[in-house]
Amino acid sequence: MEYEELLDELRPLLDGRRWRAVRARIEELPVQDIAELTLRLEKSRRILLFKLLPRPRASEVFAYLSADNQDALLQDMTDHETRELVAALSPDDRTALFQELPAEATQRLLELLPPGAQREARELLGYPAESVGRLMTPDYIAVAADWTVARSLEHIRSQREKAETVNVIYVTDHEGRLLDALTIRRFIVADPQTVVEALMDYHFISISAFEDRERAVETVQRYDLTALPVVDTEGILLGTVTPDDVMDVAEAEATEDFQKVGAVGVLNFSMREASPRLLYQRRVGWLVLLVALNTVGGSIIASFEQTIDSAVVLVTFLPLVIGTGGNAGTQSATLMVRALATGDVRARDWLRLWSKEAGVAVALGLTVGAAVWLLGFYRSGAEIAWVVALAMLAVVFMGSMLGMLLPFGLERLNLDPATASAPLVTSIADVGGIPIYLSIAAALLHNPL
Amino acid sequence: MEYEELLDELRPLLDGRRWRAVRARIEELPVQDIAELTLRLEKSRRILLFKLLPRPRASEVFAYLSADNQDALLQDMTDHETRELVAALSPDDRTALFQELPAEATQRLLELLPPGAQREARELLGYPAESVGRLMTPDYIAVAADWTVARSLEHIRSQREKAETVNVIYVTDHEGRLLDALTIRRFIVADPQTVVEALMDYHFISISAFEDRERAVETVQRYDLTALPVVDTEGILLGTVTPDDVMDVAEAEATEDFQKVGAVGVLNFSMREASPRLLYQRRVGWLVLLVALNTVGGSIIASFEQTIDSAVVLVTFLPLVIGTGGNAGTQSATLMVRALATGDVRARDWLRLWSKEAGVAVALGLTVGAAVWLLGFYRSGAEIAWVVALAMLAVVFMGSMLGMLLPFGLERLNLDPATASAPLVTSIADVGGIPIYLSIAAALLHNPL
Repeated sequence: MEYEELLDELRPLLDGRRWRAVRARIEELPVQDIAELTLRLEKSRRILLFKLLPRPRASEVFAYLSADNQDALLQDMTDHETRELVAALSPDDRTALFQELPAEATQRLLELLPPGAQREARELLGYPAESVGRLMTPDYIAVAADWTVARSLEHIRSQREKAETVNVIYVTDHEGRLLDALTIRRFIVADPQTVVEALMDYHFISISAFEDRERAVETVQRYDLTALPVVDTEGILLGTVTPDDVMDVAEAEATEDFQKVGAVGVLNFSMREASPRLLYQRRVGWLVLLVALNTVGGSIIASFEQTIDSAVVLVTFLPLVIGTGGNAGTQSATLMVRALATGDVRARDWLRLWSKEAGVAVALGLTVGAAVWLLGFYRSGAEIAWVVALAMLAVVFMGSMLGMLLPFGLERLNLDPATASAPLVTSIADVGGIPIYLSIAAALLHNPL
Repeated sequence: MEYEELLDELRPLLDGRRWRAVRARIEELPVQDIAELTLRLEKSRRILLFKLLPRPRASEVFAYLSADNQDALLQDMTDHETRELVAALSPDDRTALFQELPAEATQRLLELLPPGAQREARELLGYPAESVGRLMTPDYIAVAADWTVARSLEHIRSQREKAETVNVIYVTDHEGRLLDALTIRRFIVADPQTVVEALMDYHFISISAFEDRERAVETVQRYDLTALPVVDTEGILLGTVTPDDVMDVAEAEATEDFQKVGAVGVLNFSMREASPRLLYQRRVGWLVLLVALNTVGGSIIASFEQTIDSAVVLVTFLPLVIGTGGNAGTQSATLMVRALATGDVRARDWLRLWSKEAGVAVALGLTVGAAVWLLGFYRSGAEIAWVVALAMLAVVFMGSMLGMLLPFGLERLNLDPATASAPLVTSIADVGGIPIYLSIAAALLHNPL
């Protein structure tokens, strides 16, 4: 799909108000591609293209836009247009829209909805941010255990417009309690006169609406589910989470972790769309904080003035020594942050991993220490060579321990392990490496080997 | 699911050879949980538990194990046991197993398979590593356009044991060319006497078997597909990719990128399971390479000996200045690496992003420069304050440009942008920051403001 070519065709058509030609050109495209085109169009043309879409497609396209673009489009629409658009969104897409908008905008939109949809939206918004409740759709298909397969299929047919997925059919009791989750193939294959009860094994996997949405991702991935039923504490079926939502959450969570590892605030925006101001805001906080941390290193250096004066050559190895500690720390930290995020490693595994990491760190420290000994010897003789090599061993060990234990510590404190970003670990390792290096120098240079 | 409790129950049962009790305890568990239990058991007990599983379940459990664990289990099995186990795997799981095993092991296993499965496996293995061909399963359901819905449903019923997914039914012509992809709901809802042709709109999204598997992830996510048909250059249907495989690939690719950003070789292993030797190997290369890079910084410092001697206080600001350049670079690099990986940004967008990044970098540089001016003034007077502040502005700009352009450059050269790791960017920024800082110092301290 070459968007740019198509845009070059569409622009003159839009500017020339040749609406029918525009419609004909985009009519056959998947909604996701229309959404992409909308995004790439200039703002003034965007609303034109959008208003040309037939109503149900407009809502589908709208669901694929990012929150800020949705907001911008809504501002160019009348109340009547807004009501039709938002009412036609599926409940989970509507919740996603509402939770991203400023509170007043959400309020205004809610009031435009018909009473039934308004109640539904308020309920979904009642679940905590980033919870499964916000992710689920209440549009599922449920049948009773004493129905026949024929009656169930009849019910499925009548519900198909409403339900987001028919791949899994739920069986509930008269109070709405979930009894089983059956794939549609069971119904297709069964004799129409069979009672649903006969297909059931009462084995199913469900999740609470109050769980973190990351748990839904883990559960769907672990059990390869095509739909995950959501229940309340009584086991009453509330809704269902579909794999497309799960994949979106998985991608968003991985991106968040990436941005945190780079010491950038969570962007929640496309890089292509993000304003320079936003990018500045998400970066400046960490950068200034790390400057404050790094200034501590300067004070430490100042306190070792005598040692430095006695051998200025020490300065030439300073960036190498502290940089290597930071690099080793970043390696450990990224491994741990990701392993904790995917559930590969749990907080209680820390001790076993710690001993493994300590062994790896010593081996790495000895390797780089040996390499640097040769360099130091060649450049400045044996005395300096021993100082630098020992310092390398020590900082690689310190950096690796820091990089490993910081994410675990954060996880234990119920903070996000990804806060142990590469720049944070590097800066702490820098500050820690300075006294290690200069103390070793002070000790060895006054008491030469 | 509390695995540890269950394991404490199972261990004495396995040691006491109380097979029936073990079977009763695990019989009702989902295969994914049995796989997890198998992993957490000691090696000697693992094979016992595994051999107790009924045959079809054993293969399902096996499919959920990592390659090294699969290999270890196979080594404890007879040829007969191996043949039954591997033959019962689904084709895509079998391909995944074969591609991870050493070549001789793959050869030996292939020869154990029945001829049909052997041919199928060789074909799938003929696709390049990490291609869609390796990911797909040839077990799909296809119907002809001139069949009735009733005949199609009959066919679906007869195929259900074989096919991995029935959510999407494919329509092919007599040469096997893909004509359409229809969801199963279309068949359920339609009148049984309707001809399939009447349900078709000839609109579907497919992918080539030779495409990179990351493209399959992007396509499934973009279009929210429940199954993605795979075709050859002629449009002949070869297989289908299911969302569970796509999710696994998406997670694996994100983990790879994470490890690369941390300057760790791709692990392809669970952190919990990885041996210290493997962890050492995956880290030592980058660490030593970065040491080599960092030694350049030392030579540069040596060449500025005169400047340093004239104001030793400059040394106390050195880690701060070069560290901040590295931090700004890491921020830019992680944003870009992730944006390129998710397809949010393309290589050709670089110019537009460059100008945005340049603006952000100047703003960030001015902010930290101003902060550091105050610190420098307080600590060492106006002269040093100006040197340090200007150096901060310059290194933040340099680091940001480096962090942004390096991933783009790598992408242009068809290398992986994630190679622009945090430690690599930090180390280059360190080396680049030293001459910037010391040149500014040399210039300003001899020609004071």
